[in-house]
Amino acid sequence: MKIGIVNASSRFNRERAEAVEAWFATNIPDGSVKVVFHPATFGKHGHFGGDDASRAAAFVEYANDPRLDAVWFARGGYGSCRIAEAVLPRLGPVARKKKYLGYSDAGSILALLYKAGFPNVAHGPMASDAVRNDATAWRVVNWLRSGDSRSLEPSLADDPRPAVAFNLSILDALVGTALEPDLSGHVLMLEDVSEPLYRFDRMMFHLTGQASIRRVAGIRLGRVSDIAYNEPDFGLTPEEIVRYWCQRSGIPYLGAADIGHDRENKVVPFGAR
Amino acid sequence: MKIGIVNASSRFNRERAEAVEAWFATNIPDGSVKVVFHPATFGKHGHFGGDDASRAAAFVEYANDPRLDAVWFARGGYGSCRIAEAVLPRLGPVARKKKYLGYSDAGSILALLYKAGFPNVAHGPMASDAVRNDATAWRVVNWLRSGDSRSLEPSLADDPRPAVAFNLSILDALVGTALEPDLSGHVLMLEDVSEPLYRFDRMMFHLTGQASIRRVAGIRLGRVSDIAYNEPDFGLTPEEIVRYWCQRSGIPYLGAADIGHDRENKVVPFGAR
Repeated sequence: MKIGIVNASSRFNRERAEAVEAWFATNIPDGSVKVVFHPATFGKHGHFGGDDASRAAAFVEYANDPRLDAVWFARGGYGSCRIAEAVLPRLGPVARKKKYLGYSDAGSILALLYKAGFPNVAHGPMASDAVRNDATAWRVVNWLRSGDSRSLEPSLADDPRPAVAFNLSILDALVGTALEPDLSGHVLMLEDVSEPLYRFDRMMFHLTGQASIRRVAGIRLGRVSDIAYNEPDFGLTPEEIVRYWCQRSGIPYLGAADIGHDRENKVVPFGAR
Repeated sequence: MKIGIVNASSRFNRERAEAVEAWFATNIPDGSVKVVFHPATFGKHGHFGGDDASRAAAFVEYANDPRLDAVWFARGGYGSCRIAEAVLPRLGPVARKKKYLGYSDAGSILALLYKAGFPNVAHGPMASDAVRNDATAWRVVNWLRSGDSRSLEPSLADDPRPAVAFNLSILDALVGTALEPDLSGHVLMLEDVSEPLYRFDRMMFHLTGQASIRRVAGIRLGRVSDIAYNEPDFGLTPEEIVRYWCQRSGIPYLGAADIGHDRENKVVPFGAR
């Protein structure tokens, strides 16, 4: 198996890439799973890991490359919403068969691929996460290689409904745009990081205020980590906030999801299983 | 003229209210313009200036009070989106005739009042702003008293099209919800404060990606102030970001607007003039 790594978002550094390559060389010495970084991964253009055209071209090239079995996002940050629409019409039949794995900012591209009917799109750890923790890396390798069910978010084992997972900030910023997939009947898992709770509350107001999102089967809440300071104390926990907006909007609250901006982040394949 | 001041958002302190009262006593000693604070303005409930029910009840009471000519928002922060929908059905014919003035977080309520056909809704300085600068306070008094055209955002003098003004973060968080008014054919003025530019860019992606917003007559950009640190430098200015997304979404970019989170913030009455 050969995994192509691309960067659709913020700048990515070579040292982290070398650590990813070293992890695979050390842990899979027979070379049965190989990773390759697109050279454009290390581009720099203001905030971004290369300008929009370069990031889009790199993604398209790897997605269409028949020698690669999967496209793995290098990191998050910000930027994939800028290129998602430009990328889609350039993807051929080879791209459609491939696995795509990432989360956080990569959710903008994952959303559009899922909307376009790509069957193997998943939320899960990115290359930059995997090398920080062996279990995280094996979770990815095992899912990409065989769809290993031990890599999956555990509630998926008991709930046959189609599912998706998103960073709240990312999904909240794509509802109503051309990137929004139809999530009717889906279990929607949400996680978030580095937001003060007033923003978290406002995003839940906005998200659950969408007619489209009110058609989901329910919401599960992943981890909300590294919460930024709110002055004064907000007065509600993230779970209380999600329960409030679910109740108010008529969306079932389904409990916790084992996803988040951390090493325990599990794989959530988009759609039916 | 009597102005009722209410708080729909974050906590507001008595010292600031006393300064507002002192400004009116000093500058309008004949009592021809009076202000009155709703007692609930000083409530405290976690992040908010009182719980949702108290803030909603105070707004409804003052909006329906025939002794008051205008409802003026005390301050912004966060919270008015939580109460807007609950407030609207409780407003009677008296409320409909009144002037409403505020901006920033108050935009969530202003949006819904405008959507409901209230004819005298305006973006402009709040009570907490006015006492910091005499010219700001007179701008409000003169507009509330007589609709003084010198209080208005200057482009309104030359452009006969209906207009609205919003904080970008607030409008971006209400598109697609029950609060969103039909802005077709409107000049949309945007300002923002305290955001890193990657968020500003993401909000412009989201806002200009809405089919509804693509029907505006054009966008004017007010001041984007107190920009939070973006690591690395984003690479585009706020105006360049707005021009980019306008161009990409087919929305005319109309130039600058004289609004912002500052003492120069001008009045923008919503709708046709």
